[in-house]
Amino acid sequence: MSLQGLMMDVPLTISSIIRHAAKYHADTEIVARTIEGDLFRYDYGRAYARIQRLASAITGQLGARPGDRVGSLAWNTHRQFEMFYGVSGTGAVLHTINPRLFPDQLVYIINHAEDRFLFVDALTLPLAEQIAPRLGTVEAFVMMSDRAHMPASTTLPRLLCYEDLLDAAEPAYDWPVLDERSASTICYTSGTTGNPKGVVYSHRSAVLVTMMYLGFVTMKADNGARQTLMPMAPMFHGNAWQFPYLAPMTGSRLVLPGRNYEPDKLYELLEGEKVTLTCGVPTFWLIILDWLKRTGNRFTTLRASLSSGSSVPRSLMETMERDYGVQIMQAWGMTEVLAGSSPMAPPGSAELSFEQRIDARMKSGNAVWGVEYRLVDDAGHELPQDGKSYGHLRIRAPWAASAYFKNEGGSAVDGQGWMQTGDIASISPAGQILLTDRSKDVIKSGGEWISSIEIENIAIGHPAVMQAAVIGVSHPKWQERPLLVVVARDGHQVSPEELLAFLKGKIADWWMPDDAVVIDALPMTGTGKVHKLTLRERFKDYVLPGLR
Amino acid sequence: MSLQGLMMDVPLTISSIIRHAAKYHADTEIVARTIEGDLFRYDYGRAYARIQRLASAITGQLGARPGDRVGSLAWNTHRQFEMFYGVSGTGAVLHTINPRLFPDQLVYIINHAEDRFLFVDALTLPLAEQIAPRLGTVEAFVMMSDRAHMPASTTLPRLLCYEDLLDAAEPAYDWPVLDERSASTICYTSGTTGNPKGVVYSHRSAVLVTMMYLGFVTMKADNGARQTLMPMAPMFHGNAWQFPYLAPMTGSRLVLPGRNYEPDKLYELLEGEKVTLTCGVPTFWLIILDWLKRTGNRFTTLRASLSSGSSVPRSLMETMERDYGVQIMQAWGMTEVLAGSSPMAPPGSAELSFEQRIDARMKSGNAVWGVEYRLVDDAGHELPQDGKSYGHLRIRAPWAASAYFKNEGGSAVDGQGWMQTGDIASISPAGQILLTDRSKDVIKSGGEWISSIEIENIAIGHPAVMQAAVIGVSHPKWQERPLLVVVARDGHQVSPEELLAFLKGKIADWWMPDDAVVIDALPMTGTGKVHKLTLRERFKDYVLPGLR
Repeated sequence: MSLQGLMMDVPLTISSIIRHAAKYHADTEIVARTIEGDLFRYDYGRAYARIQRLASAITGQLGARPGDRVGSLAWNTHRQFEMFYGVSGTGAVLHTINPRLFPDQLVYIINHAEDRFLFVDALTLPLAEQIAPRLGTVEAFVMMSDRAHMPASTTLPRLLCYEDLLDAAEPAYDWPVLDERSASTICYTSGTTGNPKGVVYSHRSAVLVTMMYLGFVTMKADNGARQTLMPMAPMFHGNAWQFPYLAPMTGSRLVLPGRNYEPDKLYELLEGEKVTLTCGVPTFWLIILDWLKRTGNRFTTLRASLSSGSSVPRSLMETMERDYGVQIMQAWGMTEVLAGSSPMAPPGSAELSFEQRIDARMKSGNAVWGVEYRLVDDAGHELPQDGKSYGHLRIRAPWAASAYFKNEGGSAVDGQGWMQTGDIASISPAGQILLTDRSKDVIKSGGEWISSIEIENIAIGHPAVMQAAVIGVSHPKWQERPLLVVVARDGHQVSPEELLAFLKGKIADWWMPDDAVVIDALPMTGTGKVHKLTLRERFKDYVLPGLR
Repeated sequence: MSLQGLMMDVPLTISSIIRHAAKYHADTEIVARTIEGDLFRYDYGRAYARIQRLASAITGQLGARPGDRVGSLAWNTHRQFEMFYGVSGTGAVLHTINPRLFPDQLVYIINHAEDRFLFVDALTLPLAEQIAPRLGTVEAFVMMSDRAHMPASTTLPRLLCYEDLLDAAEPAYDWPVLDERSASTICYTSGTTGNPKGVVYSHRSAVLVTMMYLGFVTMKADNGARQTLMPMAPMFHGNAWQFPYLAPMTGSRLVLPGRNYEPDKLYELLEGEKVTLTCGVPTFWLIILDWLKRTGNRFTTLRASLSSGSSVPRSLMETMERDYGVQIMQAWGMTEVLAGSSPMAPPGSAELSFEQRIDARMKSGNAVWGVEYRLVDDAGHELPQDGKSYGHLRIRAPWAASAYFKNEGGSAVDGQGWMQTGDIASISPAGQILLTDRSKDVIKSGGEWISSIEIENIAIGHPAVMQAAVIGVSHPKWQERPLLVVVARDGHQVSPEELLAFLKGKIADWWMPDDAVVIDALPMTGTGKVHKLTLRERFKDYVLPGLR
């Protein structure tokens, strides 16, 4: 029989984070761009006062009980930040919803989550009006604005005003002591096949994964340096890399970009608000870099940007670091895994050359304490982590999903309790993780795997290529062979022959696509990824050159 | 009814830390000074192979079951490091014992903990031989050495050889999945009154508090810089600030100083082994600084030293930072609270002047997420955290004790679940914590408190003073008045009048000691603190000047 420790049983809960910030970093600033476009400024002290009122309103006027789902269809504003604490802290569950999803998907997930309330902002209100007749559980809608910005009229049956709710709420709120394993947030996967599935984060998982990032905040900072965090990633997507938790936990300033992602507006915040650390998909950086080059602007405080979601073009990473002093740090995560790897370079790599450091950062991050990794072949046999073997990536972590809401799609884990990430990866002995493909998109040629992502990353380096996708096309002898599909940049033209010549020598000969085609647009998902299933469907009868 | 999150139930256990390091930082070096004095070098990969054998030996040859206590009476060597994982990882409980305790105390705590085995090194073997006849539960002693260093003869009934145990052990070990709340380690408080009390750390508390330090490791480091951690603090005392966990969790190099604390030997490690971060009590630094000044040596890699246990003389802190580039960072902890505050300077303080930053660092650290703080007066009423009010410090944290082993001395917490730290403190609105006294040592004069520690810190600044203690002496009108007791430096003389004149103007007039006495030596505890109870006893009939 084991002996129990005699330490305090203090649960890891999200409300503890904002209570800490309000108490000891009360004057630390939060700057948020409103939906209307101006900048709203307050601090953790004043935010907390409003969060308490929000919690009172959620549980009082709205009558949300522990476990009830409260939907938020909104962009990165200060009110969305308040929802992260004012909803989850009460024991109710914040359902963060991506406004870029198609209406059918929105209807499905809101009904599936059984959201009792749906919070919207001025930009998502029309979407809510469009789908409202098909929503079965929503009792009231709340407009995240003040009275002055409420719409003159609406087709919604019951639309409340966020600021009115706060004004009428009890100013004090006693946070309940929650089980740390209780649900804090639901986020639906944007599966490219089947229905979206709900990942139910617990307070424990959110707190632990935020703690894991503590080292990221102080990196490159002198002891006592002020850090300012701005999530460019949307807060409806995996909690925006925990930035809304990480900033108050560390007493860092927080900047929220609202909805305006124009490069000049992002720059105005990044530079004007002295942001030191940010996060977002590579697309933001492609757009911002282009704008920087045109305008000659520089960064004086920005040090690093976490990047995830898709791979970063090498030239972008090189230019941002060499010319602008900003490290683009890749890590891997997914809705089901709040952080799959660390963006931090492995200890000792600071001594490497610039080229070698970029090489290292072109990987998908590094093995981090808290996550266990396993690579398996199609038959489930474990493969070595030697940096050469590619296999299905399986993980275990306190911040990884074990199942989906209402058991949709069965368990998320295999028979041994490992989560099936759906990714193909290699892992080096030093823990460098390289994701090479989604399992379902990998091209199987003569019994070997060809990584579509690696070929795409090279193709995107061609100056005339804006987007690239590589898919498998059936082949009588090899089972599948790769086909390169590209979209050209505006005003550029490129031939299949040029594309294939560009790849030649950069990848193994047997990985060379059998053909290339240039099309007008790639089918995209609501989260900005190429919908390869649709693309494969479109090219399923494509006859490769050697077979014509 | 709340909704449960659907995340993996992965317990926070200590073995996960060394498994991570062995897998992804296998070549990262551990350097340890042996008891014999030479340097032993290996790495996480080879350490883990030995730790697996140790766990096999502990559970196999020795037959330790989960919950059984295994005592370790040893200094900071590589074998002590192996015990941290090879014992706790099996579900057995490592009882770390301070060899500086008096024999009666050692006998008491070993019997109280019911240690089944006692691991000793060449330096602690004579101590074990001395107390062995009085130990009721120890079945076998293990000498932490190889066969060549076993003693020719011993009075111990059964003395095994550590390396023989490892050689004979199964090389592989399957780590059990432990309840994260199960005990990992026991450490007894060195109470100055009553019997020592056992604090029982859980795996959860050790892992969480280590995570809390992640930001400390990357502070002042470029992304990818190699950090090297060396605990000067002994590993038998509060896990040496978690350095033995923190280094493998972050893939940092680890340097262990063994038993030789001569300044030239510490310097040889700090500088020669490229240590970047260390920890220890201020006394180490007083001795090292003196040696540095005499020899003209410098540091090229060392950046910071955590300091705790007693307050740091301001001149030491200034000189170490200005002349040697080493920040002495104070934080507060105690056996019952693995970390009570953060040593990190508050965000924004990097912009302060040197003087202001030293001012800030003269405090006892800063409020940190994870710890809740409360100040109360004698009647238990809450006091404001305004930087001016002094009160009894109460805390709550997942890494604070709720009780002592076998309920010794009653609960550690008050009726509302707050731990009674036994300290008097103030907390500023920005979370700067200043410990001013132990509750039991505070001097009550005319209903107000006088802080003995603050007066001592100033008195120690007098060039002729080596040690200073201020105690309360009874007074008919004021209840108590302060008496300053000092020990002069070798070869120095100082009069009571000089001492009082030195204090004059540096503290409030009503805090001025009514008298000063110079004595040969202060009564000390086994952990190097002044035993004030004994001192008060000695001076209980002392008649202050005005009353003679």
